[in-house]
Amino acid sequence: MKNTPTIEQIKSALTRVIDPELHKNIVDLGMVHDIQIEEGHVKILLALTMQGCPMRNQLQEQTQAAAASVAGVECVTVELTTMTEAQRQQLKDKLSPAAKFNRIGRLVAIMSGKGGVGKSSVTAMLASSLKRKGHSVGILDADITGPSIPRLFGVSGPVRGVPMGILPVESSSGIKVMSTNLMLPEEDQAVIFRGPIMSSTIRQYWNDVLWGRLDYLLVDLPPGTSDATLTAMQSLPLDGVLMVTTPQSLSSMVVRKTVHMAQELKVPIFGIVENMSFFTCPETGIPHQIFGPSHTRAISELAGAPILAYLPIDPHMTHLADTGKIEQYEHNAYQELTEVFIQHVPPREPAPAPPWMA
Amino acid sequence: MKNTPTIEQIKSALTRVIDPELHKNIVDLGMVHDIQIEEGHVKILLALTMQGCPMRNQLQEQTQAAAASVAGVECVTVELTTMTEAQRQQLKDKLSPAAKFNRIGRLVAIMSGKGGVGKSSVTAMLASSLKRKGHSVGILDADITGPSIPRLFGVSGPVRGVPMGILPVESSSGIKVMSTNLMLPEEDQAVIFRGPIMSSTIRQYWNDVLWGRLDYLLVDLPPGTSDATLTAMQSLPLDGVLMVTTPQSLSSMVVRKTVHMAQELKVPIFGIVENMSFFTCPETGIPHQIFGPSHTRAISELAGAPILAYLPIDPHMTHLADTGKIEQYEHNAYQELTEVFIQHVPPREPAPAPPWMA
Repeated sequence: MKNTPTIEQIKSALTRVIDPELHKNIVDLGMVHDIQIEEGHVKILLALTMQGCPMRNQLQEQTQAAAASVAGVECVTVELTTMTEAQRQQLKDKLSPAAKFNRIGRLVAIMSGKGGVGKSSVTAMLASSLKRKGHSVGILDADITGPSIPRLFGVSGPVRGVPMGILPVESSSGIKVMSTNLMLPEEDQAVIFRGPIMSSTIRQYWNDVLWGRLDYLLVDLPPGTSDATLTAMQSLPLDGVLMVTTPQSLSSMVVRKTVHMAQELKVPIFGIVENMSFFTCPETGIPHQIFGPSHTRAISELAGAPILAYLPIDPHMTHLADTGKIEQYEHNAYQELTEVFIQHVPPREPAPAPPWMA
Repeated sequence: MKNTPTIEQIKSALTRVIDPELHKNIVDLGMVHDIQIEEGHVKILLALTMQGCPMRNQLQEQTQAAAASVAGVECVTVELTTMTEAQRQQLKDKLSPAAKFNRIGRLVAIMSGKGGVGKSSVTAMLASSLKRKGHSVGILDADITGPSIPRLFGVSGPVRGVPMGILPVESSSGIKVMSTNLMLPEEDQAVIFRGPIMSSTIRQYWNDVLWGRLDYLLVDLPPGTSDATLTAMQSLPLDGVLMVTTPQSLSSMVVRKTVHMAQELKVPIFGIVENMSFFTCPETGIPHQIFGPSHTRAISELAGAPILAYLPIDPHMTHLADTGKIEQYEHNAYQELTEVFIQHVPPREPAPAPPWMA
């Protein structure tokens, strides 16, 4: 017996198609006006925001491919139409005002699955280093219950809201930062959120924060593969992720879980960074693998992604991190990481705001 | 105007009263048969499982105190009655079969809020050390998405189910272990659970696992203050928690969040353990504070709890941990931690199963 696909299955598949200008999926944007299924033949009516939309071919192809991936689908027809002025106005009202202003060149998540591997300090160092090279950079701290980013940069809240959205805080070198700790009266106050609120907070940091135009927006993810990570991977239009690990086999095992998660959700992995690889004794100059020999090769092979750097443990960096001066830290290993990172994820001109939104 | 309490408020306060034999709160157990409120006067009808219940005074007092803590309550009367045979049978059917057999002397959570501070290895070392001293010990691995415990002990699944419940796996020295990784075909498979499923998994590990009689059951909590931690602190009858941190100020800030959470939820903090305090260079014998000077005093003061130990970084332990032989590791620092721990949390004879459950 044939397995006839359902409208729900097609709709769910179409949420993977992200409008490149509006950074949201076509279902949530109300662009899918009709889905009809006759046996294995699926017909989709896709409403573009404006006639002559420069993305029309790309959207049509991606919609076609997403629908075709559903089991039981034999062929897909995507018919294009254009929204009416009223429909466009409805969409405009639905989009947050910030969406009109935010133009993000590259959206990259830093993740690991395992906690305490130095995800936040790698994020902060990479941001600082990209900034020094002249790029505009922001950090979205998605670690809602254990946010570290404000402390590393020595920035504090409260953030200000304006009619257009929430203004991020800027670090001394001009990195834009949004974090739950910028919302709290005391940085050590507990944020006891259950999953759904964490997820909506992350979506808010993406939708309602006035990031403006950025070459790179880095998302610092929390440990684990539950709500926050899942939301970031499903609801944010990530270009890809950078995985951070430490040498231990135990850490490698947990990070491999995250690689499987990224693969399942079809989010590209740009590369792997091994942190805390060694400590060089100041008296003897001898490097010690204090967390044992590296098990990072296995992650790299599983992910099909290169190891971008082996980073040292450096008490001087801990000191700068603890005193909010991480931007002052410079080290060859981070310099090299940044260069390799840019090779793999070169800056890209963000798509301009569609004219009808103005 | 007076603030009259509601029945819902009283009920919610009564969920904090845990039956010492059944390890569940009196509301869920169906023991609260009636609540009446006349202005500030609250009358509660509490049904004991059997006449002459040895816990009657304790339950009456705790119920009284919990209701009295609600704003607007001026006086509380707790009247006692006894369940009918039918009500008792209903309760018996509701309790999981494992509840009849599990007798846990001490239930202690190991937590930190911050990931990667070595919570799991401290849990594993403490369990091994308690076991060596002749205590019966179990570990409930509540880190559902990043479980480390099975790897540390070199145990693997699958766990077996019997009509009475789920059988935990035993380590080579006889420590009982329950962990999500014992349920997975491959240890690096991702567990992509949203919060509610994580919470019910943790409750299942407590309710449906045949722990048997244990002197100590240690709960290894995940990082963060979201679902898993919240569920463990609200739904498990914890005696208290042990906080693990590392020297960095950043780590201290996040751990202080967890201290605030424990205080808000009125869970006692037995003590603080600082992990990764120093690394002793093997060539020179000089100890290096590679993660900077300690900021743990501030946690101890905030928690009103002593620092129980400063633990070293030891590559030999990493090696044993990575190869599943953590039980073989012995070190003075852990020996001392265990002795101090037992002073603060001495073994306690678990209450026997109530005769009507037999």
